[in-house]
Amino acid sequence: MDKIRVSICGYGNLGKGIESEISKSKDMELVAVFTRRDPKDLDINADVPVVKVSDAKEWADKIDVMIMCGGSATDLPEQVPEMAKMFNTVDSFDTHAKIPEYYDKVNDSAKKGSKTSIISGGWDPGMFSIMRTYANAIMPQGKTYTFWGKGVSQGHSDAIRRIDGVKNAIQYTIPIKEAMNRVRAGENPDLSTGEKHLRECYVVAEENADKEKIENQIKTMPNYFSDYHTEVHFITENELEEKHSKMSHGGFVIHTAETGNGNKHVIEYSLKLDSNPEFTSSVLIALTRAVYRMNKEGQYGAKTVLDISPAMLSEKTSEELRKELL
Amino acid sequence: MDKIRVSICGYGNLGKGIESEISKSKDMELVAVFTRRDPKDLDINADVPVVKVSDAKEWADKIDVMIMCGGSATDLPEQVPEMAKMFNTVDSFDTHAKIPEYYDKVNDSAKKGSKTSIISGGWDPGMFSIMRTYANAIMPQGKTYTFWGKGVSQGHSDAIRRIDGVKNAIQYTIPIKEAMNRVRAGENPDLSTGEKHLRECYVVAEENADKEKIENQIKTMPNYFSDYHTEVHFITENELEEKHSKMSHGGFVIHTAETGNGNKHVIEYSLKLDSNPEFTSSVLIALTRAVYRMNKEGQYGAKTVLDISPAMLSEKTSEELRKELL
Repeated sequence: MDKIRVSICGYGNLGKGIESEISKSKDMELVAVFTRRDPKDLDINADVPVVKVSDAKEWADKIDVMIMCGGSATDLPEQVPEMAKMFNTVDSFDTHAKIPEYYDKVNDSAKKGSKTSIISGGWDPGMFSIMRTYANAIMPQGKTYTFWGKGVSQGHSDAIRRIDGVKNAIQYTIPIKEAMNRVRAGENPDLSTGEKHLRECYVVAEENADKEKIENQIKTMPNYFSDYHTEVHFITENELEEKHSKMSHGGFVIHTAETGNGNKHVIEYSLKLDSNPEFTSSVLIALTRAVYRMNKEGQYGAKTVLDISPAMLSEKTSEELRKELL
Repeated sequence: MDKIRVSICGYGNLGKGIESEISKSKDMELVAVFTRRDPKDLDINADVPVVKVSDAKEWADKIDVMIMCGGSATDLPEQVPEMAKMFNTVDSFDTHAKIPEYYDKVNDSAKKGSKTSIISGGWDPGMFSIMRTYANAIMPQGKTYTFWGKGVSQGHSDAIRRIDGVKNAIQYTIPIKEAMNRVRAGENPDLSTGEKHLRECYVVAEENADKEKIENQIKTMPNYFSDYHTEVHFITENELEEKHSKMSHGGFVIHTAETGNGNKHVIEYSLKLDSNPEFTSSVLIALTRAVYRMNKEGQYGAKTVLDISPAMLSEKTSEELRKELL
């Protein structure tokens, strides 16, 4: 069997996750890593060439799928519409509000090159989107809730780090149990994000910093913290490194609905992940298989996880799936 | 918009569930109910004709999808290969071991008639199959466990009812919490069905029956109970009717896997259903939309839930899905 020739574009946490996890799929091989940095400066683990992104064109015939591992803020909106003309791509674009606009751009590019691009893979958007869609399709009369955490929010951690007197900080988003239980009970409550989640902050203060003032600045910060129940804990740099350097995350999608004469139903999907980038990588690798197959079938343009059947993602044949997993 | 014209074949619990739930989908309408009984003897709620199954041929142009609501033991294997020549069909065939053989037969029939048949819909097989497949595709190195319950097992209830001195009985299959927690902890235990589930029996004994003997006969019954932790409770007929006549069910699919350097991941999907037939109906109705669309696209033959994208099941457009649920 010819293996699917895969490359990584961008060697951050996600790129490293792909590099670590791709060997678990029997039908793929990593063939190159693309970077905007000087390739000489990049120390990768895999035994494959490191290539400058600007030289990607020369690899058009040597790669089946390019996994785009940049960030959603600036990297992906710039890079994917370019790459999608030359390669089948998979990405994890996660700025929910901008997805429709992003979709259109990537769709145009991919269609021009007779390529296929799966956008917004991962777990949210990604597996959680799949769960919301199934639940809503089965029971459109019901209501779907998404809870995130426990996990680190990079944006909130950064916001704390910008406060005067703060040396370092990590912020966890934590779903509120009582809110989850009201949802599971079928109460259909109206809940703001702040009523669904609390924010736990671990802060390393500069020597002689005014901790009371820092705590107050965090708790009253508009948009980020003021609408939430926020807890602030001051710890040492060592403690932060020892106890809070794991990139764990997770969350819940809960859908409740009634049928017939007041019969209640609860559909719940949850993820508990020690490594957010490694789990996201695992999803992107399965999507890599799907994008390769869809392109072979002539399904060009941009696609999302909602356009892909479960079988398309699996390395098992349809016969095996019917026998073993149906 | 033309609505999808749907009919029900078989008016038991499932057929009644379809009748009750189909109005929740805006794009479908019930047009007929087919029965093997004398139509005059069937008292249905919907205001549609009741038709003898043997007259189905005359309805070939008036129905888009026939939802087959018979049992898996004898009804579906007989009826679906016949109906699939004339109609797009959806069914909930759930004898796991016989699915490959059943698939082949239905596939032949549907292809002959340029029709499409979705087999084995519902929740297991069905939603649970989808969850097993996604989890296995994302993390093929991991292990998937399915737990059923708490819910009534019709087969086990019947087995108790056949014992001398038993007037009526209900048997619940209950997942064992300790086993579930070992799975969630990533221990990857080897567990037999008996180590994953216990059996709770509510028994109405005949007057003067030897209860001790009945309890012993239940607990030692091979295949059904002897390999399980089994609890037997004697209750009155009234109590059975009041407390144990709901058709509730549910279960769990749990997949655990490791990535990178010992990072653990837990994917969990659960269903808690007050009405097994009404939930199953809701799934079959979403599949009805999919089978209609797939047939329009020229995808003929037998399909399973694993061949269908989430978007195919939804009454929302792709644009709406990307905006609202992705």
